[in-house]
Formats: sequence, structure tokens, C-alpha cells
Amino acid sequence: MKRQITSPSNPLIKEIRKLRNRKERENSGTFYVEGIRAVGEALRTGQQVVYIIYCPELLESDFGNQLVSDLPDGFEGLIEVTAEVFDSFSLKEGPQGLAAVVRQAWASLSDVTADRGIWVALESIQDPGNLGTILRSLDAAGGNGAILLGQSTDPYHPSAVRASTGAVFSQKLIRTDLHSFQEWKSATGYPVIGTFCGDVKPYRDYNYPQDMIVMMGSEQKGLQEIHLKLCDDLVTIPMNGSVDSLNVSVAASIILFEIYHQKEKSG
Amino acid sequence: MKRQITSPSNPLIKEIRKLRNRKERENSGTFYVEGIRAVGEALRTGQQVVYIIYCPELLESDFGNQLVSDLPDGFEGLIEVTAEVFDSFSLKEGPQGLAAVVRQAWASLSDVTADRGIWVALESIQDPGNLGTILRSLDAAGGNGAILLGQSTDPYHPSAVRASTGAVFSQKLIRTDLHSFQEWKSATGYPVIGTFCGDVKPYRDYNYPQDMIVMMGSEQKGLQEIHLKLCDDLVTIPMNGSVDSLNVSVAASIILFEIYHQKEKSG
Repeated sequence: MKRQITSPSNPLIKEIRKLRNRKERENSGTFYVEGIRAVGEALRTGQQVVYIIYCPELLESDFGNQLVSDLPDGFEGLIEVTAEVFDSFSLKEGPQGLAAVVRQAWASLSDVTADRGIWVALESIQDPGNLGTILRSLDAAGGNGAILLGQSTDPYHPSAVRASTGAVFSQKLIRTDLHSFQEWKSATGYPVIGTFCGDVKPYRDYNYPQDMIVMMGSEQKGLQEIHLKLCDDLVTIPMNGSVDSLNVSVAASIILFEIYHQKEKSG
Repeated sequence: MKRQITSPSNPLIKEIRKLRNRKERENSGTFYVEGIRAVGEALRTGQQVVYIIYCPELLESDFGNQLVSDLPDGFEGLIEVTAEVFDSFSLKEGPQGLAAVVRQAWASLSDVTADRGIWVALESIQDPGNLGTILRSLDAAGGNGAILLGQSTDPYHPSAVRASTGAVFSQKLIRTDLHSFQEWKSATGYPVIGTFCGDVKPYRDYNYPQDMIVMMGSEQKGLQEIHLKLCDDLVTIPMNGSVDSLNVSVAASIILFEIYHQKEKSG
């Protein structure tokens, strides 16, 4: 049950290329995933995979070929393409010959209360690489997912998907506006700890609750008054030197690994 | 003492555009810096500034204009350009109208022994954004500089310069090959602590020396046998979840901030 496509101007191939564009991703509710490991993670974590596209000339890895041959018999989205076709949509240098189109999976704030634990809320995060890196760290630190507030970049942007190294599949993703988040916070009382550059408690001296949301500001502005009011507490990362702030994904990761360390220590 | 340039095809403007290319940067021994804050840091830290390029139409910030008017009388590299010219080499969306060409400043391994403290050694780091982010964290954690081994990306790549938020000026930069590094390490005994995914001491349980080099592997491969042999000790970052590693700049930062925390605690 597979299609073969040999022309880069085939309409389906054109659609795949269009997924570089956020609007096209939003309209189709899908996104593009490339590489053996990433496609493997999409399958392993049970994502709704629309297409698996593979190129026999390029796909040398045994594991990659196994992924293709292990697809269930009824799967109708298998597409075999030539190297020329694969190159026409590939975003990698030295493509491995395996890609997928996967359905976006958005959760909602009620999932936070249903799946209590560690979450991150990001206000208007701009850089997709930073967002993907935060998802990767969140997964590694045992977190549940990210809440995207304001004018956030897209976690399904190819750079975010790549930087997440699969965490885009394992972490839940929620997007909402600040107002809805405030209402939900008032209604549930779910703890929110904000990070702040200023005279607040150092992040190492804080005793983090079991379930909580770590709130981070945008790369440019940090958290604003309106966000700070919403936080139960604020922590800061003491630092030195002439640079007065950290990359947002680094700052989030340092706090997440302090929380993880405290959890591990308390068993 | 300033030149005015109104044509994007002026030879000097062409030279500035060429600095996007690593080979051109190496040949000229200079690099391109853009933005008020970055140019301000270059001046504040006493870099050898070859050109300051400003565009009166775009430069609205008082601080930015002050930087230009505070330049010493004898400075011969001031260039005033039109918005069209500035746009022709700018790498920013919404350029601020201030840029500079700065001389590269490389240190050598003897600077490590002369300026003891915390350094990072990076084996074949590939992504300039990761390298810049590590320099930023290194600065924030009170480090001295980075030693680039193997086929490393260029710290003077525009993405590295941008991600460093000025730390490219405050941190010392050394590039050398593994063999020279090994010889220097044998001769000096300077402590080298490697980071490793495996059954070694958790990074929080390690008592870091006052002066040391944190050694990190490349994004793809981590540290290899040949590097591990060179390390006095290895530490690991325990983690959870389906992702089995962290972004290299995140991992470096987590370790650097543990070292910084230990130093602060011991006064």
C-alpha cells in the first residue's frame, strides 16, 4: 500500500514543502518531521502520522528501513520518492531519506490539572530553537509540557521540532492567552513560580512544590508586571560578569534541573 | 573625521557584507557586530574597532548616538551611511542603525595558566548559536574563556556573536588542536573535568577545583575515548524522560552554574 512519486512538482510534494510556512501548518493542522530519530520518535510515541516519506536511495540505516517495514498493513500514507524529490523538501544537509507529516496535537489547560507535575509557561517566546531546546530540557527533567502565552513562536516550526530532538512528541503543548491563563490560575490555584532578574529569592534556596508551573518571560522583555502579579513566588538566578542575563532556554533549564534535583533528593 | 557612503556598491560596504563568510573573516582578521548593545560592549571592553558604521535615519536611541559622539577625536573609522546602505549589510530585522567591524582577538593556551579560573573546552562544536550561548553563560557564571578544539564553528560567526550578547568580547577565545591541548595539559597539569553520558559521578556530587577546564563534546558525538583519557575526572547530568541528552549549551550552562554555586557558597 504505497505511492511512488518521482516529480518534485507533484501536488502532494508541494504541500509538504509548504509546511515550512506557519500559516500552512495551522491550516492543515500538521507539521513536517525529518530524520530517522525524529520519525522514529513520532511512531514510538503513537502520533497521528499522515505520511511517511522515504527515499530508498538515501535511506541507508537498518533502523530507518525497519521503521518503514514495520508500518501497519493498513497504513495508507507511505510514499516512496526519488532522491531528487526528497531533496526538494528536505531541510537537512545530507538528508537521511526519511521524513513524515504528523498531525499537530494541542492540549488544553484542563490537561495541566489532570496531569499534575512540572510545566513551563512561556510568555511570547520568539525563537523556535529556544522553544525546542526548552522542550528537550523539560523532557529530560521529567516535565509534562509547555504552556505558550501571547505571540509565541510555533513549536511545530522545523527548527523547534529539530531542537526538541523528539520532545515535541513527548511533551504536551498548550497555547492560550494571558487572560484565560489568569482565570484558570484563579480557579485552580495551581502554583506558578516566575523567574525574574532582580532582588528575589535565589533559585537554589527555594523549596519547589511537587506540582508547579515555571513561568519565563520572552527573550527581549522578561516577565512584565502583569505576569509577576500572577505568580505565587519569584526566583532569580544569581550571576556574575558583564552579561546580565542568560539565554531563555538556558535559564529555564537551570531552574528545571534544580527542581529535578530536589525531587530526586527527596525520593 | 568621518566618511559618508551613499552607495551599497561602495567597495568598503562590499567588504563589510563579505564578513558573513568565514574565509573573509579569517583573511581580514575582523568580524561584523551589529546593534547598539553589541557595539557598546565592543567599545566598553576596549576592542580594536576598525569601523563604526551608523545611519542617522535609523539610529534613534540616545545611548546609540552618545556612543558615536563619544568616539575619540582621532578615530578614523567612522562611517555614516544611508538607510539603503545600512540595509544592504544588516543582519537584523528592524536594524537599529549601528554596526561595527572589530578585530578578532585570539588568546593562546598560555593565557589559561596566566589567567587561572574557569574555562570551557569544546570539541568540534558545530552550531554558532550554541557557541555564543555558551560564551554568554560562561560570562554570567564568572568564567574566563573558551578553548575550541577540532573542527569548531567560528565564534565570530554573526549568529555566535549575537547569541553571546557581548560575551564574545569579555571571554577569551583560544583555538588549538587536540594534540597541542594534550601536550599543554601534560605540561601544566591544569585540571580538566569532562562531561559524559554514562555511569560517572553526578555533577552535583562533585567538588570542583578552584581552577579548571570543563570539557564538552560536540553536538553529535559527545566526548570520544581520546578526550576522556585526557580528563582528570568525569561528571554526568542525571536525567529522565525519553530524550537522552541535553543541548550542548544547556549542559555546559548547568555545569557552569553548579561550579558557580559551589564557589559562591564557599565564599
